[in-house]
Amino acid sequence: MIGTRVRGTMMCFKTGKFITFEGIDGCGKSTQLLYFKEYLNKQGEDVITTREPGGTNVGDAIRSILLDRKYSDMTMEAEALLYAASRVQHVTQVILPNASAGKVVLCDRFIDSSIAYQGGGDPLTSQDVRNINSLTLDKIRPDITFLIDIDPEQAFKRLNRGRDRIENRGLQYQEKVRKNYLKIASKEPDRIIIIDGNRSKDEVFWDICDQFKRASEVD
Amino acid sequence: MIGTRVRGTMMCFKTGKFITFEGIDGCGKSTQLLYFKEYLNKQGEDVITTREPGGTNVGDAIRSILLDRKYSDMTMEAEALLYAASRVQHVTQVILPNASAGKVVLCDRFIDSSIAYQGGGDPLTSQDVRNINSLTLDKIRPDITFLIDIDPEQAFKRLNRGRDRIENRGLQYQEKVRKNYLKIASKEPDRIIIIDGNRSKDEVFWDICDQFKRASEVD
Repeated sequence: MIGTRVRGTMMCFKTGKFITFEGIDGCGKSTQLLYFKEYLNKQGEDVITTREPGGTNVGDAIRSILLDRKYSDMTMEAEALLYAASRVQHVTQVILPNASAGKVVLCDRFIDSSIAYQGGGDPLTSQDVRNINSLTLDKIRPDITFLIDIDPEQAFKRLNRGRDRIENRGLQYQEKVRKNYLKIASKEPDRIIIIDGNRSKDEVFWDICDQFKRASEVD
Repeated sequence: MIGTRVRGTMMCFKTGKFITFEGIDGCGKSTQLLYFKEYLNKQGEDVITTREPGGTNVGDAIRSILLDRKYSDMTMEAEALLYAASRVQHVTQVILPNASAGKVVLCDRFIDSSIAYQGGGDPLTSQDVRNINSLTLDKIRPDITFLIDIDPEQAFKRLNRGRDRIENRGLQYQEKVRKNYLKIASKEPDRIIIIDGNRSKDEVFWDICDQFKRASEVD
């Protein structure tokens, strides 16, 4: 999505690339994102990495509310809106300026996370989540998304550190999130590349690089 | 709006009344809301008062971000989404349960504040603000709204205490907000009652009571 014209106060053109990493908690996407950054750097690309929720001062403050287990009574609607607030700040202050400056922006989670985690239909539909994220969708969309797909049981075992408010929802929730992710991917095969995460870190990494090369050739 | 069927997990019927107080900062609405609560109590009504942003644990945490002057770089989009997040939590946990239990809920600010403060068209339109608040609008709308309309210069003088992040935007911003409020009121004359706030507290109070009696007779 090079040269996208974006709406709002910051009317600029994106000349770089915006690539997101998605998947359930414990799927290994954060590790793979860092490996991929090194790979791109070696190719001579100017890369920045960032993550959601957070990535800005305002976003970090929102992140601390979102992940704090003391807010266990947070409604799914409020949760989705908080993610959307953090996201639009992040897009305006970090993602768009860097992508417009020709950099490759690698982002750990983006709007697909909201659709998969909050938009499963109870109470929010994926369309509800898209609606409340319309301010972001008007500004930018990822060029490529790597969905690291992994067996939820295996991923859950990796979360041996203290779990945050979202991770604390348990295995059944992660299974539902995985299904939502696969549903999103089936609708956008040109953007979303499914990577089998049930393999060694190296195997997953080389698959990502191969797929990226192929997608870039298509571009 | 008695007996409104609401969407989402909490499918309940509202049998009480939901009344909101709106106006620019320093217009006197918080004081008038408390006077009006006492008035209704004397009439034998079961009344609760609440305010936005805040009114819940999650909402209070959001409020502290929204009003903190250290977040002066917050985008208008993020601001509008944070208000919407606080609001939907507030509606679900406080406003709807109480209105459904037959109480009169008096709320200091609601969705009209977001439209007036964030929806002036730069960069958000009133429709943008309505879209991101659609989860709340699906659940409840005020029965009556008192808009305390006051000369912005007079209101600004009243804000002699330390100003928060929003109030700190200055007189010109308050003038714009006032105009936005009057525009909203012109479109919904059945719901929004404009009260001239450029008078003594007692005069404003008795006007509110009179207008309320008239509106209740119409119901």
